[in-house]
Amino acid sequence: MKRVMLIVAYDGTNYCGWQVQNNGTTIEGELNKALSSLLKEEITVIGASRTDSGVHALGNVAVFDTEARMPAEKMAYALNSRLPEDIRVQQSFRVADGFHPRKTSCIKTYEYRILNREFELPGERLNSHFFRKELDVAKMQAACPPFLGEHDFKSFCSIHTQAETTIRTIHSLNVTKEGDIIRIRVTGNGFLYNMVRIIAGTLIQVGFGATDPSEIPAILAACDRQAAGPTAPARGLTLVKMEYPEHPEFPA
Amino acid sequence: MKRVMLIVAYDGTNYCGWQVQNNGTTIEGELNKALSSLLKEEITVIGASRTDSGVHALGNVAVFDTEARMPAEKMAYALNSRLPEDIRVQQSFRVADGFHPRKTSCIKTYEYRILNREFELPGERLNSHFFRKELDVAKMQAACPPFLGEHDFKSFCSIHTQAETTIRTIHSLNVTKEGDIIRIRVTGNGFLYNMVRIIAGTLIQVGFGATDPSEIPAILAACDRQAAGPTAPARGLTLVKMEYPEHPEFPA
Repeated sequence: MKRVMLIVAYDGTNYCGWQVQNNGTTIEGELNKALSSLLKEEITVIGASRTDSGVHALGNVAVFDTEARMPAEKMAYALNSRLPEDIRVQQSFRVADGFHPRKTSCIKTYEYRILNREFELPGERLNSHFFRKELDVAKMQAACPPFLGEHDFKSFCSIHTQAETTIRTIHSLNVTKEGDIIRIRVTGNGFLYNMVRIIAGTLIQVGFGATDPSEIPAILAACDRQAAGPTAPARGLTLVKMEYPEHPEFPA
Repeated sequence: MKRVMLIVAYDGTNYCGWQVQNNGTTIEGELNKALSSLLKEEITVIGASRTDSGVHALGNVAVFDTEARMPAEKMAYALNSRLPEDIRVQQSFRVADGFHPRKTSCIKTYEYRILNREFELPGERLNSHFFRKELDVAKMQAACPPFLGEHDFKSFCSIHTQAETTIRTIHSLNVTKEGDIIRIRVTGNGFLYNMVRIIAGTLIQVGFGATDPSEIPAILAACDRQAAGPTAPARGLTLVKMEYPEHPEFPA
């Protein structure tokens, strides 16, 4: 028996999120199906981040156990030919038997992408949130520092959360603009349900002037979902990467 | 009666190209339908570039005549709400009654986009050609100069062409790389059927060493489709813009 880790990229547009459910196709379900068919045994992956419907990933992580003799490194190629074209394994390798991708401390990086111009661009529609009103990037940048460090992020958490605590640590949060594309990139030790999308929605409000950057500390302190901005749409969000500080050797 | 010009962007993935045909949905057909519904008269656009199935555009051009009193500038907004989300008009404005987008001399810019890495990225699949073998960009760049200027491009033209002459002028051709993305950008006074995709296919062969940059002049001189490389897939190609030197006022 060996435990294998997969680094998985996907376009979440056509999926009901990561986690297997009764109605609708999921990333996890497609991986289980492709793995079981490839390895001729019933495989159930354990995912690191159970992304929502419509959210994308460049580097989500999943592990599974197998008796197969196929070298772990070869599995990425073999799996991709059995997966739909909107899911692609980027890497596969063996990890320690006890490794659990959600119970091991990790640093996640997300990117929220906004197309900010007068008219939509069809080629950007699947992985950007289109926003017509001009956004002031300098103001959005000025709103970032109060988010850094350890805070109770209850204001930035969907009321549907099941989390035991709403305290999280954000290591970095920055906003950059290139042409018509504004990118919000955030790194932290874990995120609450919808937290990145609510941060993005709040920064967008700052960008068009509905909220002043100076209001962010009070919004955080309120510990009230009503105090923050709206949840920005799923299509703009991508899980960029997961890093395990206790395991600097992967992803390679 | 007035003649109106549209600048149109689209993701060509789900279309049988620009031109109306009996079987399958086309960009031209969708524009005619949306315009006729908006303006309450039968509208038939004249397109500038009849792009192939699967080819994208950021700035194709179409004109049509209408009796409608709606100001031409307002039409872009009104049309977009009646078009599918993979077609978006970027601008609409009045032009001289006699203006014909194919009979007026113009300069077209195309971009061919290649994703060059070990594994596909789902988010790039609709507008890039995935190529696994490493491409030598310096060699691809070295192959560009012989294409510049006026040549008989018969070697770079599909045998299905109906063009009267295969002589064309290329104003610029360059290859750039950013991360895993290689872009081939070409500007000229018109292109033969599949010409940009055959140039891209030939440059890819140069990139992985099947063709030497020094062979390009002989490939051009052969005036034989067999001498050039394969036709690269449609999904990597985007019509970036059209410029009318006699009408420097548009697109605005």
